[in-house]
Amino acid sequence: MPQRKNAVVLLSGGLDSTTVLAIAERDGFAVNALSFSYGQRHATEVEAAKLIAQTAGVTRHEIAHIDLRAFGGSALTADIDVPKNRDLAVQCDDEIPVTYVPARNTIFLAYALGFAEVTGSSDIYIGVNALDYSGYPDCRPEYIRAFEQMANLATRSAVQDGSKITIRAPLIELSKAEIIVLGTSLGVDYSMTTSCYDPSASGEACGECDACQLRQKGFADAGLSDPISYVKAAR
Amino acid sequence: MPQRKNAVVLLSGGLDSTTVLAIAERDGFAVNALSFSYGQRHATEVEAAKLIAQTAGVTRHEIAHIDLRAFGGSALTADIDVPKNRDLAVQCDDEIPVTYVPARNTIFLAYALGFAEVTGSSDIYIGVNALDYSGYPDCRPEYIRAFEQMANLATRSAVQDGSKITIRAPLIELSKAEIIVLGTSLGVDYSMTTSCYDPSASGEACGECDACQLRQKGFADAGLSDPISYVKAAR
Repeated sequence: MPQRKNAVVLLSGGLDSTTVLAIAERDGFAVNALSFSYGQRHATEVEAAKLIAQTAGVTRHEIAHIDLRAFGGSALTADIDVPKNRDLAVQCDDEIPVTYVPARNTIFLAYALGFAEVTGSSDIYIGVNALDYSGYPDCRPEYIRAFEQMANLATRSAVQDGSKITIRAPLIELSKAEIIVLGTSLGVDYSMTTSCYDPSASGEACGECDACQLRQKGFADAGLSDPISYVKAAR
Repeated sequence: MPQRKNAVVLLSGGLDSTTVLAIAERDGFAVNALSFSYGQRHATEVEAAKLIAQTAGVTRHEIAHIDLRAFGGSALTADIDVPKNRDLAVQCDDEIPVTYVPARNTIFLAYALGFAEVTGSSDIYIGVNALDYSGYPDCRPEYIRAFEQMANLATRSAVQDGSKITIRAPLIELSKAEIIVLGTSLGVDYSMTTSCYDPSASGEACGECDACQLRQKGFADAGLSDPISYVKAAR
């Protein structure tokens, strides 16, 4: 049997990145998962990521401890209230949400690039989505292509032996419902995933933040039931 | 008096980045300095950076604690011996040195981009040098330009109000001697800077690693005396 090629998968423990992990495995890659502990409110994500990586049988799983709080400026890391029960139509217009973390995807992809070099990975998978997160500049296809071009000038492997880095964003044009249908077809167990920006002390999803609302609407649109429980069920 | 524009300066505490800080101030910017504590052997750099930032009277100085050791793969972060007394001609050919940290400048610039957004900075200064570090892919002008293009697709400010990020690498084509002459003309006190990859417990430079050799040769070529002391003086 030929040896599988290596890929890095950015794994937050959320619904999207867990689906991406299943896609990378379907694509035949040996997966090196990379998660971040960055003082986020939803630290339960990191615990979810560990369980998901273990269940998927990844080659390697690293959790990088990084410091985004020094910058402030986002409800996900600073002391700003997470918005609740916002109209989804309002979330999805071109306004940039308060939960935006400056340069977060650039920082995550930069680490992924270093991890790709160390693990001999040619491909980096990231679960960005341009539909539900149109307000985040670093979720757009043109951003992903620009990062890829930069990455191919940045690394020893690109310079020494001309091997190319490919940034894969397989969810970028999918709706949440389409993501859930695809993941379900690949056997993803969504009961292990967490999406909430503001979970309870016991780790239960709030049901009211943007991420919970998007997730609940996605399962409803897909005609599937969401296996996780919520403090407050969908309105 | 018009308000000065803000810039982010990546400040390692070394000779190059300290010169860059002086250049940013000469260029009229209010400086937001950003340093990293990343488990590097030369942690004395961070202490030097604090003193340098304070002396320069920067607007803000943040030290981001980041985790590069998880990746391994470099003598600067892992348990690999720092090369000593290598021929400078050998260092400066196209071979990539063992002290190369995968994606380090990409990670540093990604943080700088986040810090630029939070501080309202239009410019990011980095002390990369393509002459002495020709072996590092992420020290080349084409890499810097590609990062800049990506950065201008990545941030809220670029998307919302079209303000542009400029990555400035003012040392990129200078020799070490030229850097020292320029910095001296701008009043840089090089006694505060540290360059050594492998300093003694008391923080004294070894005099034998690549960085010490380049620094010593730079001062000699510039016809200036290096104000720091070395465990072993230049051969």
